[in-house]
Parts: sequence; structure tokens; C-alpha cells
Amino acid sequence: MPIYNAPLADMRFILNEVFDAEQFWQSNEKLAHLDAATAEAILEEMAKFAKNITLPLNRSGDEQGARYADGKVSTPEGFQAAFQQYAEGGWIGLSADEEWGGQSMPKMLTVLSDEMIFATNPAFMLYPLLSVGAGMALSSYGSQQQKETYLPKIYSGEWSGTMCLTEPHAGTDLGIIKTKAEPNADGSYNITGTKIFITGGDHDLTKNIIHLVLAKTPNAPAGSRGISLFIVPKYLVNQDGYLGERNHVAPGSIEHKMGIKASATCVMNFDAAKGFLVGKENEGLAAMFVMMNYERLSMGIQGLGASEFAYQNAAQYATDRLQGRSDTGIKNPDKPADSILVHGDVRRMLLNARANNEASRAFAVYVGQQLDITKFSTDAEAVRKANNRVALLTPIAKAYLTDTAFNAVLDAQMCFGGHGYIAEWGMEQCVRDLRIAQIYEGTNGIQSQDLIGRKVIKNNGEFLYEYIEEIRNFVHDLDIELNFIKDFTLDACLEVEAITQRVIEQAQEDPDFASAVAVDYLHVVGLLSFAYMFAKIADVAQQKQGEFYANKLRLAQYYIDKVLPELNSRFAKINAGSSVMMQFEPVYFTQQ
Amino acid sequence: MPIYNAPLADMRFILNEVFDAEQFWQSNEKLAHLDAATAEAILEEMAKFAKNITLPLNRSGDEQGARYADGKVSTPEGFQAAFQQYAEGGWIGLSADEEWGGQSMPKMLTVLSDEMIFATNPAFMLYPLLSVGAGMALSSYGSQQQKETYLPKIYSGEWSGTMCLTEPHAGTDLGIIKTKAEPNADGSYNITGTKIFITGGDHDLTKNIIHLVLAKTPNAPAGSRGISLFIVPKYLVNQDGYLGERNHVAPGSIEHKMGIKASATCVMNFDAAKGFLVGKENEGLAAMFVMMNYERLSMGIQGLGASEFAYQNAAQYATDRLQGRSDTGIKNPDKPADSILVHGDVRRMLLNARANNEASRAFAVYVGQQLDITKFSTDAEAVRKANNRVALLTPIAKAYLTDTAFNAVLDAQMCFGGHGYIAEWGMEQCVRDLRIAQIYEGTNGIQSQDLIGRKVIKNNGEFLYEYIEEIRNFVHDLDIELNFIKDFTLDACLEVEAITQRVIEQAQEDPDFASAVAVDYLHVVGLLSFAYMFAKIADVAQQKQGEFYANKLRLAQYYIDKVLPELNSRFAKINAGSSVMMQFEPVYFTQQ
Repeated sequence: MPIYNAPLADMRFILNEVFDAEQFWQSNEKLAHLDAATAEAILEEMAKFAKNITLPLNRSGDEQGARYADGKVSTPEGFQAAFQQYAEGGWIGLSADEEWGGQSMPKMLTVLSDEMIFATNPAFMLYPLLSVGAGMALSSYGSQQQKETYLPKIYSGEWSGTMCLTEPHAGTDLGIIKTKAEPNADGSYNITGTKIFITGGDHDLTKNIIHLVLAKTPNAPAGSRGISLFIVPKYLVNQDGYLGERNHVAPGSIEHKMGIKASATCVMNFDAAKGFLVGKENEGLAAMFVMMNYERLSMGIQGLGASEFAYQNAAQYATDRLQGRSDTGIKNPDKPADSILVHGDVRRMLLNARANNEASRAFAVYVGQQLDITKFSTDAEAVRKANNRVALLTPIAKAYLTDTAFNAVLDAQMCFGGHGYIAEWGMEQCVRDLRIAQIYEGTNGIQSQDLIGRKVIKNNGEFLYEYIEEIRNFVHDLDIELNFIKDFTLDACLEVEAITQRVIEQAQEDPDFASAVAVDYLHVVGLLSFAYMFAKIADVAQQKQGEFYANKLRLAQYYIDKVLPELNSRFAKINAGSSVMMQFEPVYFTQQ
Repeated sequence: MPIYNAPLADMRFILNEVFDAEQFWQSNEKLAHLDAATAEAILEEMAKFAKNITLPLNRSGDEQGARYADGKVSTPEGFQAAFQQYAEGGWIGLSADEEWGGQSMPKMLTVLSDEMIFATNPAFMLYPLLSVGAGMALSSYGSQQQKETYLPKIYSGEWSGTMCLTEPHAGTDLGIIKTKAEPNADGSYNITGTKIFITGGDHDLTKNIIHLVLAKTPNAPAGSRGISLFIVPKYLVNQDGYLGERNHVAPGSIEHKMGIKASATCVMNFDAAKGFLVGKENEGLAAMFVMMNYERLSMGIQGLGASEFAYQNAAQYATDRLQGRSDTGIKNPDKPADSILVHGDVRRMLLNARANNEASRAFAVYVGQQLDITKFSTDAEAVRKANNRVALLTPIAKAYLTDTAFNAVLDAQMCFGGHGYIAEWGMEQCVRDLRIAQIYEGTNGIQSQDLIGRKVIKNNGEFLYEYIEEIRNFVHDLDIELNFIKDFTLDACLEVEAITQRVIEQAQEDPDFASAVAVDYLHVVGLLSFAYMFAKIADVAQQKQGEFYANKLRLAQYYIDKVLPELNSRFAKINAGSSVMMQFEPVYFTQQ
């Protein structure tokens, strides 16, 4: 039976010591309702929920999976009760506005509570997550009446939400969707089409499901500028707020997937279903993008949660498993063998995962804080800078945090040897469940295109140079005893600036260049970002006494010595450019 | 429905043009029965078998899995007939001695035929593979009577074989196994104990199953020098060769695994089962190791097969999938979007896989040839060198080929976007099925320890320096137009020599060093080996005309530009040593 104990000590360390969250909250009128003690209490509550409610449902959820029969989807045993409890705990609306029944908690706190559910049951977490996403789009673009009708029900967990974007022929390229929206005389629309990969498209957790659907009106312009957003409720809502007739939307089937099997991934058929326009016609993509920064950060949190879960189990297994002897002499003379923790290679795998966890967690809080500034700050310059920072770092939060987490989870699985491949230890499910995080919400390849294209080349590196300036200023002031991290991080700053300059120049000469090197470039910025996080961690740890802090410094050293050098090969690959990839004729790929 | 077409053109190119196999076979008395045309006919036959028999059973085998009920294991639908056909085609004994009903085919050929079955149905392939492994151990260490009794039946497919090594508490560390072998008056032994992870431990494909079991006799020395090997047949064999009474060995359960679900992974209970000593008491591990070099190369072939399968499907999908437009202008004006092949990042993923396939295939044939020299050559010096080469490169063949294949398969899966996560496209099964290859037959971490410890440090780098000398001599003579590969490979030779020198020196000062850097070191030697293979490929291609050869050169260039630079970060991680990992107290790992 896999274990999980929420990493509360590290969460407290990051919130209170690294980011001094209370000071940030108290200095902001809209967040002044929150202090460190309350935040801690929230995290402790969620830690119990994760350990006692969602963790025990993780494997059974995987085994049973979501089931489709008679046009309806049912969730695995225990999911209804757990969702009920999650809703009653106020967790769905934790970050939502109080006006709509939420608790207005900042993202820098909810990234940590979300991590715990992602760690213990990612398939479960997707149900409330999609509700929150739909709620967010509605609260930004919906009419007052739409907000009043839907938001309180969504945040209370009576109803849930979905995002219906993808179609069989259109995923990344939403400009070519075919779903139609034909206007009715009463101002509503008839929505007709097929959407696929709809998370929570149908289930038995809530009385109603509010679909947010992208579709094209009859005379819409071609491409992505002709897409509108509609509310399509499973059950229409009467004027009195009670549920009315069943709308013409239904699941056609659910997908059989590698993992997150308890999450219903539906094919949704809309057959002249009644829909209600959100915002203006042809501006649907913008409404989608308002929630993208949040959702994409959530996928990074999914990665972090999985990596933490996998690490904890691998560390315990490695401690308990006796095989072989230490190369420096027997450590466990009373036993037939030493713990495999004595082997450097086992430590390498565990430390890769742990360094990933601590840097990812700090980075999630950092990006969460930037999002909070964009939402809550009244300082226009601070908001401008934070918006740029969020734009730049969202692809890192999504793609880099899931790429590194996937590697960490593989390392953790490997610590188990053959047992890592067996279902009962939970590691193989963790690998299967996490893999989707690199794929959905825009594949990590697409995230990399977004970073290098829209976030770097398009503004001549402005966002990136601002970010590096912040890093450099911070690192520059580090204590002399932190030179081990200061020097390497300053070097990395220079190198990343130089490679960025090259990327911007090269992209003008060679239109294929950006796509060809995008993933390597994203990893470069990710590596530097984690070095920055370890600099922040080390800066605090250096000023404190005790083993807890000494270990933070050791882990920072591990990162600099054993992870950051990956920069070298990434730079070389970027410098190699695109021509070596583009010179092949298309037909080559399917020929021997 | 996933596709597969055996890469016969590349196989022919490697066998005939890169390695001039016919010349090698014809110049060796024991292989002179084989010419290029016969080899080609064998590969063409196997290609049909893979496409028509094993490929269609791959997904259904995964869905049904091996099943355990009433103390017996049954295989998925179609496996019995397929195994029958495989046996009747003579495929089980393809590389076995003619004396025992085999066909005495060289390994440099059978690596290619094996690849096809691993590509199309790895779970199926494990049944005959274990038979061949058991046959190999018996033909090296069994008595004449044991060989006569068991080998013809195993190679004809009437019976099958297993290797029973692992116990619940003992995997990597076989010295601590508990299974007991108590001598009987008639010279047989009573075997009692529990073995786990026994591939093909029970099934319904053959009339008998011959277990090769490691156990300890009553007064055996402690540790790995006190382990003996026994034959334990499921049904005892009467003197007349017919099957007699059921032996006291039975499956207790089968494992629920991440993948290779059609392969029965059994817990085997031995309850005073009758066993027959193979070779001498206490020399069982040596008998196991005789087959290890072959088996471990087979795991590399499993990687190659999966990577080829995944590549072919991803290349087809990328060709067919229309999303977005080329950055250099519309390529497909009649369609709403261009093929995703226009994007550099998609090409990066495909070319990573394809470069891996072609280098891995060449490397498998190269190592196969070295194994053939050890087995068939009469030139003592050639045999000595080949033995050293095989010892050095076996961990590369197992671990490096499966590590790189796993990354290739992940890249291929990513080309499918969300569809890669859905069962019907076959990619997620490919990922799940391949993952075990990094774990079993000694984890890739253990392979790395074997390489750096026994194969490099122990002989002061002799095997490695011999190998590099061969590479250097070959690369030195390359045409000037191949300087792009020559220079980088010569540089890599120098750097690998230098890092090896450092490893050897450092290991004397720091007993933890080797384990800490082993995986990085294995990848260094693997990267150089693939560069060597591309040098061989490029050398041939350079002298020929036509697109086929031009593409070989382009792919070699891709490898040098986009893969080989990984050396840089590996060197840096090795240079960082072990202290940053070993300074943590053991208790740290399970604390927050």
C-alpha cells in the first residue's frame, strides 16, 4: 500500500521563509484576510483529506476506472462520497471569489493544497479542477446573470464544469474546428458537433454539468478569429434556478487510456443542444486563454504531486530494501545485506526526484505569487511586470515541471527494481497517470513553441531579459559562502542571455529555427529557473542553524553539480539549428 | 490499428554493406552454411510472421492478459496457435546447435529476426526467449544425458524453459537466496522455496516446462559461491522420454503488471520438488552467467524493436495528421492545414527515434558478430579480443539500448498528442511494454555498475582502451568529406579515454565514486558507440549514390549535431563525483 505524507515542513519553509508569504498577504488589501497560521491550518486540513480520503481511492479508482453504459458515465466506488466531502470542505471554491461562494485564497497557497490531491489521486483531482477552470472563464467573460446562475452552484460542488475544445481532426489547431452554433430567435444557439477528450464530460458526481464549448457561428471568419464560446448545460436551468429539461448533449463513449482511468475522458455529442453565448461572438479563444495560465500551472502541480508521491515511496522502499553491501564497508552487520540507500546510484535517483520536488514547489509558489499580483495588486507597474513574468513562465510551469517530474517518477520507479513494474506498489500507476500531464493542455512541444515564439522572439526577449535581471540581482547579493551556487547561476544567466540573443537573430534568418530548437530552449530556461529557486532556498538556509537547513544547502549543491550541467548539451543542440532536421524530404519518414 | 513493416532495407544494408556478413560467414567453417541470400530469405519469412501472426495478437494479448485460475495459467487467445507456428517454423532453435535440432544461425542474423517479434509482440517473444536461454545454459553445463533429454524438446517447442532466480527478498543480490536443495539417495534433490518474477513460470503453450532453479544445498558456503543450479521439470520425464508424474512445483499467482501483460510473470512454489543438479554443486551462478550475455543483448533488441515499431507508427501519424501551417509558408494549400511533419519539433522527435533505431540495429549486429566470433572462431587471439569486447559491451547493449529506446518510444508517443495516450493507437501499450526492459535482467543501474566496476575499473580500462583503439583506427581512415563525423568522434574518443582515466583513479580514492557516476559513465560509452556505428554507416553511404545513402549521411549528421552533445553534461556530472550524494544521512531520505 503506497504511503503519502504531505510535505508540510517544506511547504511551510517555502511559504514562510523563502517567500515571506504572510508579509505579502498582509500588505495587500484583498489578501489581508489571510495570515500564516490560517494558511498552515488550511494545508494541514488538506493533508488529512489527501491521506485519508483520496489516497485510499487511488488504486481502486485505477482498477475500476470510469465506466460508460447506457449513455451514462459512472465513477469508481467512493468517488461520489469523496467529491461530496471535497465540496463540503469548501475546496472547490478555495481560490474563487467570495462573491460567488469562494474563499478568495491566493494561488501561492492553493498550488500547495492542489499538490496534495494531485499526489494522492490525480484522476479524482481532474473533476474539481475542470469545474474551477470553467468557473474562472465564466467569472471573467460571463454576464452578470450567467455568473449568478452558474458560479455559486459550481463552487459549491452541486454542479460541475467542462471545457469542450478538441475535435477529432482539431486539437492544437483549434482554428479548424467544425462544431456549429446556429442562432435561435430567443438569443440562444443550437450547438451541433462532436468534441473529444472531454475530461469529466459525463459522470455521476454532480446533478448538472456545465459545458463550455467552442463553436463557430454561421458567418464566422475562418481560423481562430471565428471561434465563439458557449455555455451548454447538461440540464437546462429554469428561471427559478431549478433544473429543467435534459439538453441534447450526451457522451458517446469514453476513452481507454494509459492512466488517469478514474477520470472520465468523453466523446461528447452535441445534437442541436441549446447553448448560450459567453462574451462576444468570435472572441471565444480569448475567454479560453484567460484560464489557460492557471490550468497550465495546475498541470505543473500535477507533475510535482506525482514526483513527491513517487519520491516518498521510493525513499521508504530504498530504506527498507536490503540488497548487497556498501562499497565503504558493511553498514548493517546484523542483517544479511545493507539497505540499498548505501549505493550512490540509488541516491542519484532519489536526489534527482527530491531536488525536482523542492525546486518545483518553490517555482510553483513563485509563479502563483506572480499570478496573485496580477489579480490582487493595485500597483500598475507591479501588475505589468507580473503579467510579463506569468506569460513567460507559464510554459515552463506546465512543460518543464511535467518533463522533470516524469523523469523523477521514472527514477523513483526504478528504485523498486522489478517491484516498480508491479501494480501493488503503486509506482507503475504513478508513471501512467503522470504521462498525460506532458500531453494535455497543449503538449509540452506546443508549450515550447509558445515560449520561444510568443513569449521570447515576439518581444525581442524583453520578458526573458527582465526575468534574468531579477535573477542576477538576487544572486549577486548572496553570501560568499554560497559562491558554489552564485557563480554557476551567474554564468548560466550570461549563457541564457547569449543563447536567447542567438535564437532571436537566427529566427529572423531561418523560419524553421524556432520550432526546431524550442524544446531545448524551454529546458534551458527551466534549468536556470530551478537554479534561481535553489539560490532562494540556499539564501534562507545559509542564515539558519540545524540539520533541516544544512540539508537544503546540500540539495542545492546537488542540483548545481548534478542537474544544472544539462545546460551544456542543450546549448549545443540549439546551436546546431534546424537545417539538419529540415533537409529530409517528407516522404523519408515513412520510408525505410 | 498499429502498423509494422519490418525494416528489411536497413537490415540488408547493415548486414551486407556495413558488416559484409556473407564474407564473415563464408570464411568461417561453422557458418559457411549461410550466405546472404539465405539470410535474406530468413528475414523475409520472419517479417511475414511478425506482420501476420504476432502483430494482430499484440493488443488483444494486452487486453486479455495471461490469466491465473485453479492453479494454472492460460495465455491470451491466439497465443497457442502462434506459438505452434513459431515452433514449427523452426524459430525457437534458430541459433541453437544442429546437434539438438537447431539451425546454427549466427547471432548477427538472429538479432534482426528477434527484433521483428519484439517489435510486434514483446509479451509473446518472452516465451520462446526464455526457452532459448534455458537451452543455452543446459547445452553449456548439462550432462550429455540432460542435453539429450531436454534440448531437442525445448528447441522443437514441445517443451519450454524458465529461469528461476529471484526470491521475494533477493533480486540483485542472489547470494542471499533461501531456496533449499536437499539431496536424495538416488542422486536427485528435493527443491523447496518460493521464486518470484518467473517469466513463463506456467502457461498452456507447451506440454512440459523445464525450470532452471538456483538453490542452496545444505552445507553450501554463504553468499554467491554457494549457489547451485537444478533442473526442475513441471512433469518428470520417464526413462523412455515420455512424461511421467507431476512434480511438486506450481504457480501460486501471477503478477499484475504495467505491461507485457500477455507474458505470465509467476510466483512459483517449490515444495520438495524433484530437481537434478546441472554441472557442479556451488557453481550455479557461473552456469547462469553463460547465458547472460545473450539474454542481455536480447533486452537491447526488445528496446530496438519497440523503438522501430513506435517510430513507424509515429511517422505515419505525423504524415497523415493535419494541424497548423509550416513556418516557411503553406505546404498543403488544398487542405485546411499542413501535415505536422512540417514542424521542426515533430521532426526532432521522429529523428531521435530513427537515429536510435539505425544506430541500435548496427550496434546489435556488431555485438552479435562479436558473440559469433567467441562461439565459432578458431583464432585464439580473435576469440580473446571478442570475449573482452562482449564483456565490455553487454551492459551497453542491455542498458543503453533500452534507455535510448524508451526515450524514443516516448518521443513517438508524443507525436500523437492526446491520441498517444489512448489504447487504440498502440503507443501507450508500447511504452508500458518496453519499460520492463530497463528493469529486468539486471536493472540498468546494475548494468552500469557492471560496466564501470567489473568491465572497466577491474582491468584498468584495458577492454575499453582496446575498443577505443578500434574506433580510432576506423574513424581515422574516413574520407575527408566525413570530417563532420570524424572530428567529433575522435574528440569523443579522447574525452572518453580521459574520463575513464579519471574514473579509474578516483575509484581508488573514493569507494563510493563508481556507483555514484555509473549511469552517466554507461551513457558516455553508449554515446561514443553510436557515433562509431554512424561512422561505419556513413563510410559505406559516402561511397554510394542515391537518396537512400544520402539519407544515411543526413541521419549521421543529425546524430552528431543533436544527440552526441549529451556527452558534455554527462562528463560534468561524472566530474562532480560522489560526495554531494553521500553526505546526506540515511535518515534524510524519509524525512521532509
